[in-house]
Amino acid sequence: MQPAPIERLAAAFARLPGIGPRTAQRLTYHVLSRPEDEARALAHALIEVKELIGDCRICFNLAEGELCEICTDTRRDPTVLCVVEGPADVLPVERTHEYRGRYHVLGGALSPVDGIGPRDLHLEELYRRVAAGDPDTGAAVTEVVVATNPTTSGEATALHISAELRQRSPDVVVTRLASGLPVGADLEHADEVTLGRALAGRRAI
Amino acid sequence: MQPAPIERLAAAFARLPGIGPRTAQRLTYHVLSRPEDEARALAHALIEVKELIGDCRICFNLAEGELCEICTDTRRDPTVLCVVEGPADVLPVERTHEYRGRYHVLGGALSPVDGIGPRDLHLEELYRRVAAGDPDTGAAVTEVVVATNPTTSGEATALHISAELRQRSPDVVVTRLASGLPVGADLEHADEVTLGRALAGRRAI
Repeated sequence: MQPAPIERLAAAFARLPGIGPRTAQRLTYHVLSRPEDEARALAHALIEVKELIGDCRICFNLAEGELCEICTDTRRDPTVLCVVEGPADVLPVERTHEYRGRYHVLGGALSPVDGIGPRDLHLEELYRRVAAGDPDTGAAVTEVVVATNPTTSGEATALHISAELRQRSPDVVVTRLASGLPVGADLEHADEVTLGRALAGRRAI
Repeated sequence: MQPAPIERLAAAFARLPGIGPRTAQRLTYHVLSRPEDEARALAHALIEVKELIGDCRICFNLAEGELCEICTDTRRDPTVLCVVEGPADVLPVERTHEYRGRYHVLGGALSPVDGIGPRDLHLEELYRRVAAGDPDTGAAVTEVVVATNPTTSGEATALHISAELRQRSPDVVVTRLASGLPVGADLEHADEVTLGRALAGRRAI
């Protein structure tokens, strides 16, 4: 019912996550109503990002070139590694301004149901990195903060890493993000798993 | 903090309507996590839609080529014209399957506050079209359905068109979409303007 190029753009928009057919249609009409420059800028940014962005050779974070901005930043503490599931998890940790160490991006979490085993993640690279120390200075890694998601697969991954590191690099401390009540939440509406974690992890004040 | 190509894509996504900075970031990471083909398909669709789609020479609906699919469809009734504000308004009318006539897209609505006057819309073309009849068969236009939005500027545009057509083409019937309760709504939650319209437009059953 619509010209094919319009259908094709709407279909391409609808393949993005969280964008249903109605929104895709609305975005398409928006593009049609705006100057050609804007469509070209988005098109160019899409191609450019795929051409220029790859994995950091050391930590597998997103990088323009060989190394990511964190691995090239000499002011970052090389003795602490924060292990996250995906590159999208680096940003929220950075936004806290509480962490000054480096990262290791696994590329997912262990999930036998989905057929994701230890070989599908950058785990060997993590163990080698912890054993070898900082590639530039040779500084030893003293702590690995496992910041995988507090989900079944994230927890399984954290346990797996902790067990492996205890065997391979017994001197390294492995920590996990605290689980508990989100700041601003109220007890009345907390789910029992979260509240249970908050109780189990209670601290002296 | 992120490589520039990532920032540029997120910024381009964030210029789309209804997409805030967080969603733009999420879409960017999605693109990075998917095969290059998908990004290229979206980029290509964006450029293609701007290159191939223009205004229909007769009704100003979106068209691939000189004429839109409705103006080229000889089975459509050329004696009725449905006047809408934008090309995005054609689709919902088509989806009702209640309308078999042709369209005329104004390119907006009268809005003195925003500096949009009669000359900024395709009004002269509408009056000429109504006076001249169907460009192919010469069939006279007998009815103009003014389907502008039930907003202040949409209503003003409808009144303007109705007054002009009464003067220029007095034989043509000018109608307006019925205003009233949406199907499935309940009286208790209807706003008073809508309920007032529904009362004023009440019909014998």
